[in-house]
Amino acid sequence: MEKQRLERQIEFILEIDRLKRINRRTYLTDTSRFENSAEHSWHIAVMAMVLAEHANQPDINMLRVIKMLLIHDLVEIDAGDTFAYDGNAREDKQEREQAAADRIFSLLPPDQADDFRELWDEFEARQTSEAGFAAALDRLQPLLHNLYTHGKSWKEHGVRKEQVVDLNHHMANGASVLWDFAAEWIEKAVSRGDLPE
Amino acid sequence: MEKQRLERQIEFILEIDRLKRINRRTYLTDTSRFENSAEHSWHIAVMAMVLAEHANQPDINMLRVIKMLLIHDLVEIDAGDTFAYDGNAREDKQEREQAAADRIFSLLPPDQADDFRELWDEFEARQTSEAGFAAALDRLQPLLHNLYTHGKSWKEHGVRKEQVVDLNHHMANGASVLWDFAAEWIEKAVSRGDLPE
Repeated sequence: MEKQRLERQIEFILEIDRLKRINRRTYLTDTSRFENSAEHSWHIAVMAMVLAEHANQPDINMLRVIKMLLIHDLVEIDAGDTFAYDGNAREDKQEREQAAADRIFSLLPPDQADDFRELWDEFEARQTSEAGFAAALDRLQPLLHNLYTHGKSWKEHGVRKEQVVDLNHHMANGASVLWDFAAEWIEKAVSRGDLPE
Repeated sequence: MEKQRLERQIEFILEIDRLKRINRRTYLTDTSRFENSAEHSWHIAVMAMVLAEHANQPDINMLRVIKMLLIHDLVEIDAGDTFAYDGNAREDKQEREQAAADRIFSLLPPDQADDFRELWDEFEARQTSEAGFAAALDRLQPLLHNLYTHGKSWKEHGVRKEQVVDLNHHMANGASVLWDFAAEWIEKAVSRGDLPE
């Protein structure tokens, strides 16, 4: 019984290795290649450790935040990464990702499948303090990479300031301090010519 | 004051992006390329979520385990990845990694630099239940990848069964259930010809 349970857990662990082959549109800071979704998930989980004090809610459950960040992109194994500024692809994103969540989480033993699905649903709904802070970090990281690489990914996709603000201002719901700084950096990017008005 | 603190935190966050360019000797499960240390860290952090019930100590502090796993390889940004079966490189590993820890963690505000260093020291010393479990996962993951890829990395480096057992049996100190299964899998790998006696 325990053996069968462990075998399911190992099957899930081997399956999620595929997230390392899902590329995002964000570049590494040295622009040598695109970032993949597994290393992105690692990066924002460490960011949660570093930036915890900036969450709007001071006594936030950090274990829950980090767990959400670690698994939030697993659905991309089936659904692929949807570029945040691609309006068309975003249309059927929810449907594709729900189907992916159904398949991938159900590889786990049933109790764990439920726990993981609950975490993922919470992240997607962005209603709790934990999900709001996690979502803010998920938005802050590609923003930082774009700022650091002189808007390389923005430029390649013709992204304008208004779109960046529209997509990212919900950061304020989870971490208003971080959004205030990000908004300043966005202005700087515009004034440097890295992001068109 | 708060601004200066946040700027240090952001500097650290941008610096650690370099871990995505540190390659290990372990292959992805599809053998298309080597795994890097950032995505490896992500993988074992998710493994901690999935395999928590197999820790020897039932009421282990999972937040601490996951934090250790997320930052345990950051020193490789300066020190590089040391192949676990490379005896020569392991000789000066500790010295190189201590110097790396000094530099990298001190990018953070001092209180956080201390916290991160403490976590890393705890992981390295392997004396607490949390560090023992974290270390077991750090050993289990490349073992799984080798088993899944018919010993590809083992074969390329002429690794024998005795070395695998020597290097990995400390897993039992953190998660004896996982080591029992791993020992069985190692026998299977030998009998399939994926690992020489």
